[in-house]
Amino acid sequence: MIALSMGDPAGVGPELAVAAWALAVAEGLPPFVVIGSYAVISAAGGRSGVPVTAVSSPDEALAVFATTLPVIDIGHGDYRPGAPDDAGAALALASLTLATELTRHGATSALVTGPIAKSRLARVGFDYPGQTEFVAAACGVAADEAVMMLAGPSLRVVPITVHVALAQVPGLLTTGLIVNRADIAATALTRDFGIARPRLAVAGLNPHAGEDCRMGREDADVIAPAVARLRDAGIAATGPLPADTMFHAAARATYDVAICMYHDQALIPIKALDFDQGVNVTLGLPIVRTSPDHGTAFAIAGTGAARPGATIAAIRMAAQCADQRNA
Amino acid sequence: MIALSMGDPAGVGPELAVAAWALAVAEGLPPFVVIGSYAVISAAGGRSGVPVTAVSSPDEALAVFATTLPVIDIGHGDYRPGAPDDAGAALALASLTLATELTRHGATSALVTGPIAKSRLARVGFDYPGQTEFVAAACGVAADEAVMMLAGPSLRVVPITVHVALAQVPGLLTTGLIVNRADIAATALTRDFGIARPRLAVAGLNPHAGEDCRMGREDADVIAPAVARLRDAGIAATGPLPADTMFHAAARATYDVAICMYHDQALIPIKALDFDQGVNVTLGLPIVRTSPDHGTAFAIAGTGAARPGATIAAIRMAAQCADQRNA
Repeated sequence: MIALSMGDPAGVGPELAVAAWALAVAEGLPPFVVIGSYAVISAAGGRSGVPVTAVSSPDEALAVFATTLPVIDIGHGDYRPGAPDDAGAALALASLTLATELTRHGATSALVTGPIAKSRLARVGFDYPGQTEFVAAACGVAADEAVMMLAGPSLRVVPITVHVALAQVPGLLTTGLIVNRADIAATALTRDFGIARPRLAVAGLNPHAGEDCRMGREDADVIAPAVARLRDAGIAATGPLPADTMFHAAARATYDVAICMYHDQALIPIKALDFDQGVNVTLGLPIVRTSPDHGTAFAIAGTGAARPGATIAAIRMAAQCADQRNA
Repeated sequence: MIALSMGDPAGVGPELAVAAWALAVAEGLPPFVVIGSYAVISAAGGRSGVPVTAVSSPDEALAVFATTLPVIDIGHGDYRPGAPDDAGAALALASLTLATELTRHGATSALVTGPIAKSRLARVGFDYPGQTEFVAAACGVAADEAVMMLAGPSLRVVPITVHVALAQVPGLLTTGLIVNRADIAATALTRDFGIARPRLAVAGLNPHAGEDCRMGREDADVIAPAVARLRDAGIAATGPLPADTMFHAAARATYDVAICMYHDQALIPIKALDFDQGVNVTLGLPIVRTSPDHGTAFAIAGTGAARPGATIAAIRMAAQCADQRNA
């Protein structure tokens, strides 16, 4: 049984939970339970003919999942699609908190988090850059030991730096940081994805990976030593590789994950190739946590336009990782 | 009649010219003439059963193209695949020079340049960062008025900065530079590609295009004013757009060219999507010039492993652009 936090009730999270349940049989999805507002989910269910039932526990959810979408109801306000407010943000935070706790305590086998608006949650006391850091803290894991991976059918990528200005990236990259993140990624690919000896392709920072220091020294001075240390530790790492030639099909076949130096170096290729199917996986946690790689999309919430592909992929991947850990 | 410079005789240029001719009928290619070494081309032809004939002019080449690959022979040394040397570099430079001159004077309708090794040509007096700058200078065009575009079946991209360290990119970007390059691109898309009102999608520099200056100010301070100036000039420009969501199929359908801020932002998506078919087009020149977007590949030269897709695409695109200019 997977715990799915509803996300912001004014966003597309509720309708995507409903759409995923409607496709659960066709997609071969494992059972999941939504943590959120029964009123919001049943309203979304009503718009698309999906029966929704309030349950009091994951066990109860498991018993009814085949015939109805189960919801553990913790929402008691009046929430509307497309109209975010503080009460909705507070519910999103409560949903995330309970879904995380259920999974930490083993009542659910994995956590899938629905989309929130960070700036809105900040108004109700959420003091984290994002859900990843919140979940890490709840699990007692230091933020820099939780590593974000984006995974799609074509590609897996780990950005070493994430939400920082591009001008800050060169200064933030250190050999130790790259080794630490890559090592966590390698361990997780074995533990959660069953890849006995993961192959890591480490991207260069500069064009052509610097071309013998003609375009920047970071590739030689910072990244190459990180690759050497990873190899010394027995990890199958290669690089620094010219980033522009890493992502075509023949290149992708040579590695299991691309270790990228900055946000867009990682996200441009995966969104170009796997746009609707990208899953955000947090590596390095004691629990399995995934998330669809998109936002609340307040502008289209309630219209039925949101596509459930990423939510379905996130639920499926969470279940596969949990099974792998228990194998 | 297209002029094709052979590139370095020790690289894959000669065998790609032969392979393109072998597929000319199947691919519907226009006639082309190789400028280079008859000995080298006929050796490559011999390895794949392609007849090669020395000719003295483009007119003579046109008369024989249907039955044999024509070569204007300017090579008199002993050159071997995979063994680059100064004599070969000098021949590559002479080939580039003559092919450019023939096209400048209208004896050929467009120039397609084969792959050279810049560091090798530098040893024999080539004082340019690349072939693009050489051709621009030969045409009397300032280097900063010649704009590189990469074009494939899925996407066209123009990088505003190219072969510089990533750390230098934020400091090099100015509103004036972006406007200048984007304006040249828009003009060329009309003149050479027949797009009456080209749609330009201008990428942001920082993650999420800076997200209201939370991650860097360049998107708001430098790029947004460039987009505004382009629009004031009547150009259909949008942006700055988050770069990671610009390159999936639905997004690509909304523009004709992506104006990118740095090398890998432009080259990661086009090489991920159109790896074997990328054509380098120089915009802003009085002549049409294209090039396959790959290097000399000395390591596989002579083995027959090089794939001719990009050379074929470059020849076809050169002919289409020349036809468009003359239409």
